[in-house]
Amino acid sequence: MSTANALHIKPIHTNHENVLYQHGTLAQLVPGLLEGTISMKELLNEGNTGIGTGEGLDGEIIVLDGEAWKVGRSGVVEKVSDDTTLPFANMHHAAFQFQCERENIALPELHNRIVEANGRANAFFSVRIHGLFSYIKTRAVVKQSAPYPPLQTVAEQQEIFEAHNVQGTLLGYFAPTIFNGAAVAGFHDHFLADDHSIGGHVLDATLKKGKICSQIFDTLVQHLPVDNPEYRNHDFSHENILEAIEKAEH
Amino acid sequence: MSTANALHIKPIHTNHENVLYQHGTLAQLVPGLLEGTISMKELLNEGNTGIGTGEGLDGEIIVLDGEAWKVGRSGVVEKVSDDTTLPFANMHHAAFQFQCERENIALPELHNRIVEANGRANAFFSVRIHGLFSYIKTRAVVKQSAPYPPLQTVAEQQEIFEAHNVQGTLLGYFAPTIFNGAAVAGFHDHFLADDHSIGGHVLDATLKKGKICSQIFDTLVQHLPVDNPEYRNHDFSHENILEAIEKAEH
Repeated sequence: MSTANALHIKPIHTNHENVLYQHGTLAQLVPGLLEGTISMKELLNEGNTGIGTGEGLDGEIIVLDGEAWKVGRSGVVEKVSDDTTLPFANMHHAAFQFQCERENIALPELHNRIVEANGRANAFFSVRIHGLFSYIKTRAVVKQSAPYPPLQTVAEQQEIFEAHNVQGTLLGYFAPTIFNGAAVAGFHDHFLADDHSIGGHVLDATLKKGKICSQIFDTLVQHLPVDNPEYRNHDFSHENILEAIEKAEH
Repeated sequence: MSTANALHIKPIHTNHENVLYQHGTLAQLVPGLLEGTISMKELLNEGNTGIGTGEGLDGEIIVLDGEAWKVGRSGVVEKVSDDTTLPFANMHHAAFQFQCERENIALPELHNRIVEANGRANAFFSVRIHGLFSYIKTRAVVKQSAPYPPLQTVAEQQEIFEAHNVQGTLLGYFAPTIFNGAAVAGFHDHFLADDHSIGGHVLDATLKKGKICSQIFDTLVQHLPVDNPEYRNHDFSHENILEAIEKAEH
């Protein structure tokens, strides 16, 4: 845990509904730069809604209405403590706009419709979908210890969870193609069942009936762990970052 | 001019020495998305130091001590008015740290030494070098009118300027590899002679003697023109953005 780093962060008061805050980059996870470099408490200053992972890829984290939850290999949904540190997270202040209701629609089609409705494939935006999912398939990565292995090794050990007819919230972040590497280009979705029976990083879903809300950002606040010794000196040039993200995140 | 867009921008008060503000992405320039989407006045709220280009690639802009200057095809240094709009700019609040003095050093070697001294190839940072340059070679792109051509066509029409033994300021921004496309990976340098006899986008230089100052950022505030009709609907997937940036910017 690098709480020393975490304590140096000056918040820049991104209290605007058009701002997405990102700590770390997805590229960092690829070679196994998994040290936690910001605390959950600090992240909650940047928004009440978000996704992320704990130090060492400790669980799939989702933040809804200011409460942070994680799902690890056991599949059990647990509260995330304020002093938990994270290598990567997206956070924002929720000000979602209702877009429409949809019925009986699979996730890939749902994604396409949301991009179409927003009319902005080159903006960052978030989606929150609450409703009844006739099918949901999630995964949770397995927490690693230092020295950390690369993301691909970790992704091969992931646990898969499935459920049918579950009520819950899918929270997704969309990043434009040009930011692939810094983020996951396209959608990056996490899920939490209302009864906490299932959660995690979404691999597949079918919405039976639910409300689609979206929030478009004009600004990405990209915070980097520039004082973290492993990050500052890491040479990314010999790694196929984009291919590894594609394999591990979709 | 899309002043309507420009007027919608809410500043997020990035008045921190560790924050780099970027409006637009370099990727946008590649297919010719050259409409000005922020005003110089708005940019000056985000810092007193920066680089950029005007609408239609109107000149190579440099901002030093809160004053904005541009060099176009004539090579003459002109003041940039507050209502000038820009498709792309980097801005920050200067709080440079003195790094060292250097003598008789060519730009590529100087770049390497600065990255080494900062010890952070994965952070955004700025460098300001003031001194006597035994050689400086700059270029200025030629202002285009709508419908705008792609960057490569414009780059082929650039004007080249050279000078020997000129006193001036080189202002550069360094971006980590993973942000290539959003920015120019590596250094992006502009120059202004103290006597305004030469300026522009730096292609080559040799420093005879000068002071090297640098400023490391832990946060990139990336602002995107998400309401600009050409930007929001543009499909970047069929363009080789990175190759075009490499050709046009180095």
